[in-house]
Amino acid sequence: MALDEAALKKFGFIPRETKDAINIDPLQTAGKLTEEARRALLEWGDGYSVCDFCGGVLDLIKKPPIEEFVHGALPEFLNIDAVRITHGAREAKFAVMHSIAQEGDYVVMDEVAHYSSVVAAQRARLNIKKVPHSGSPEYMTDVEGYATAIEEVIKETGKAPALALVTYPDGNYGNITDVQRISKICHDYDVPLLLNGAYAVGRMPVDAKKLGADFVAGSGHKSMAASGPIGLLGVRKEYADIVFRKSPTNKNKEIELLGCTSRGATIMTMIASFPHVVERVNNWDQEVQNARWFSGKLEEMGIIQKGQKPHNHDLMFFEAPVFYEISQKAKKGRYFLYRELKERNIHGIKSGLTKYFKLSTFQVGRENLQYVLDSFQSIIEKYENEK
Amino acid sequence: MALDEAALKKFGFIPRETKDAINIDPLQTAGKLTEEARRALLEWGDGYSVCDFCGGVLDLIKKPPIEEFVHGALPEFLNIDAVRITHGAREAKFAVMHSIAQEGDYVVMDEVAHYSSVVAAQRARLNIKKVPHSGSPEYMTDVEGYATAIEEVIKETGKAPALALVTYPDGNYGNITDVQRISKICHDYDVPLLLNGAYAVGRMPVDAKKLGADFVAGSGHKSMAASGPIGLLGVRKEYADIVFRKSPTNKNKEIELLGCTSRGATIMTMIASFPHVVERVNNWDQEVQNARWFSGKLEEMGIIQKGQKPHNHDLMFFEAPVFYEISQKAKKGRYFLYRELKERNIHGIKSGLTKYFKLSTFQVGRENLQYVLDSFQSIIEKYENEK
Repeated sequence: MALDEAALKKFGFIPRETKDAINIDPLQTAGKLTEEARRALLEWGDGYSVCDFCGGVLDLIKKPPIEEFVHGALPEFLNIDAVRITHGAREAKFAVMHSIAQEGDYVVMDEVAHYSSVVAAQRARLNIKKVPHSGSPEYMTDVEGYATAIEEVIKETGKAPALALVTYPDGNYGNITDVQRISKICHDYDVPLLLNGAYAVGRMPVDAKKLGADFVAGSGHKSMAASGPIGLLGVRKEYADIVFRKSPTNKNKEIELLGCTSRGATIMTMIASFPHVVERVNNWDQEVQNARWFSGKLEEMGIIQKGQKPHNHDLMFFEAPVFYEISQKAKKGRYFLYRELKERNIHGIKSGLTKYFKLSTFQVGRENLQYVLDSFQSIIEKYENEK
Repeated sequence: MALDEAALKKFGFIPRETKDAINIDPLQTAGKLTEEARRALLEWGDGYSVCDFCGGVLDLIKKPPIEEFVHGALPEFLNIDAVRITHGAREAKFAVMHSIAQEGDYVVMDEVAHYSSVVAAQRARLNIKKVPHSGSPEYMTDVEGYATAIEEVIKETGKAPALALVTYPDGNYGNITDVQRISKICHDYDVPLLLNGAYAVGRMPVDAKKLGADFVAGSGHKSMAASGPIGLLGVRKEYADIVFRKSPTNKNKEIELLGCTSRGATIMTMIASFPHVVERVNNWDQEVQNARWFSGKLEEMGIIQKGQKPHNHDLMFFEAPVFYEISQKAKKGRYFLYRELKERNIHGIKSGLTKYFKLSTFQVGRENLQYVLDSFQSIIEKYENEK
C-alpha cells in the first residue's frame, strides 16, 4: 500500500466500540482501569516518561516511588523475596524458563496450562511433560500426577525436570488446584515450582511462601487494573541471582530483563491502581460469593457450570444446551447470542459461541450481574415464544 | 513494609513534574504523544482492550485495522517484507539474535552500540566482536572494520558470525554511518545485518532495501510518538519463517513473540500517531537544518559539538568547557546547570552533567530552540557577572 493521504486516513484515532459495555470476558474484568490509573495514563503517556527520573535502573527510581513499589510493596503483596516488572505473565514465565533451564531440559506443567506457558517453553527450547486433569465435568488437575510426570522425566532422561509450572487458576475452568500439595511433591524432587498467577495476582490473595511457589508470574493488564503490556515476576531468593543476573559489561543492567522493561506509562498505571487492588484482594470472599450466586442462577436456567464446584474463582465455564438449541434454528444461527447480548450492551462471550463459553463475574457487581442474568432469561424467553 | 493505609497512600496517582517542560532529552523528543495518541490512550487504556476484537492472532485483527497497519502500512513505511510489533527495539533485537543465532555464535556490532544491543546478545548467550570508531572528535564507526571483525571471527572460530548489527544513528553522538557499505561487506560474507533504528524509525526516512538491512529494529516510545513499551521488528522474507516460526502445538502462535506482544493501548497509540509520524519523516530535512542551526549557535558560545559534522541527526553530543568552568565555582557545583535550566522550564540534560552532555532538537521547533539558546546564553552571562 502507498502511504498516501487516503491510506493514512484509516489510521489516527480509532474509537473503541466495547468501551462502555458491561464486559464479562475473563480477560477484561480485572484489567479495567481505576480512575487513578486513567489519570496516570494521561499524565505519564509520553514515550519514555519515567526515564526522566532514572539514574540507570528503572526499578530503583525513587521519585516517583518505583523502587518502593517494586522492592517493598510487591514482595510484601506476594510474600516473596524479590520482584521485577515484566511485559506480562508470559514474559515472566519465559524469563524463568530461559534463565534456570538449559535447552533440551524438561518442564512439567498441567494439561490446563495457558498456551503461552507452552509457547514460552518452546521459545526456551525446552521439552514439556503434561500432568493430566480429571476430564468432564470438573477438569481438576491430578495433583499426584506431578510426581508421576517427574518420575517419567527422570526415567527418560536420567535427571529431574528443570522446572514445574502450575496454573492458578487455569484460564478455561477457573479451577483452584492444591498448590501446597504440588509444591511439596516438586520440592521432594528438588524441582522448583513456577505459579502462573495471571488470573490470581490482583484478584485474590496469593501468598507465595504459603503456597510453596519459587516463582510467581502475574499480569498487570489481566488482573491488576493496569494498562498493558505489563506483568510481574516474583522470585524466591535462592533463584534471584540466576534470574536477575547482571551483565558482565554493563554492571547495573539485568540481562534477562534486557536492562529494563516498563519504561513508560504502564508501570505508573499499576502503581496508580495498587491501593484499589490491595483492597479488592482483601474482599475476595465477596467475589467468590458473587460467582457462586451467579452460577447458581444460571443453573436454574439450565446452563451448567463445569469445573470445580462449589466454585472458588470468578472465571467460570458453562455449558448452555438451551442456547445451542436456539442457535440451530435462529436467524444467523450461532451468532444470535453475541448479537442479542450486544443489543443489551453486554460484551465478553465470544462471537459464535453458544454451547460452551466462559465468563467472569469479577468486579461486575451484583446489580450488573443481575442485569446479565435478566438478559439471559429474556433471550431464552424471546426465542421460546418464537417457537 | 506492611501494606497498611499509610503505605498505600504513597501509591495511587502521582503527578509528573516534567510534563510541561521543554524537553530536549533525546529519549523524549520523539516519544511525545500526538493529540490523537493521547485520545487513543484513554479510549483503549483498559488492560487487554484490543483483545475484545481478536480471533487468536493480535496482528490479524481487522477492526481496528491492526492487520492493515502491521502487514500493510509498516512494511511499506520501512520498505521491508514483514513486520511485527514488539515491546521495544531491544526486544526486537533479542528476538532476531535468539532465533537466527545459536548459543556461542558471534555477533559483530559497532563500538557505539546501545547497551541494550550488548545485553540482548548476552541474553541470547552470544559472543560479541566490536567494530571500533575513530575516537574524538567524530567517533565515526570504522566501516571497513566490519570486514576485519568478520575475518577475525572466522579465524578464531572457523565460521562467520551469525549476525552483524549497526546502530543508526548511535545514541551518544547521533552519527549516521554508511550502512549501504556495511551491508555490502556483511553480505559478501553471507552475514545478515540488523539495523538498530531506535533513533531513526519514526524520525527520519529508513528504507531497509536501499540500506541493505535484513532486519530493522524500531522503537515506538523512543521515536514514533507512541506510549510504551512498544517497538517494531522488520524482517527480510528470507528470514521471516525463522524469526516468526509458529508453535508446533498452537498453530497460529508465533513462538518468538510468545503468541502476541502489544495486547493493549500501546499499539493503538502507535496507529493513532502514524499519520503524523509519516508526515514528520517526510519533513526530516527541516529537522536536520534545525539541528545544524542549533549546533552552530551553541558553537558561537564556545560549546563544541562532537560527532559527525555537518551533523545529520537531531541527537547531538556537546562539550561545554564554559559550563564546566562555572561548575568549579558555582554553589552546589555541577548541579547548577540542571537547576538553572529547571528554573527556565527546560528539561533533558541529566542532573550533574556540565562538561559533556547530549540533547535533541527533534520537533522542539525554532521558537523553543531559540528560547533554549537564550537560556544557555543568560546562564553563562549570569555566572560571568558573578566573577
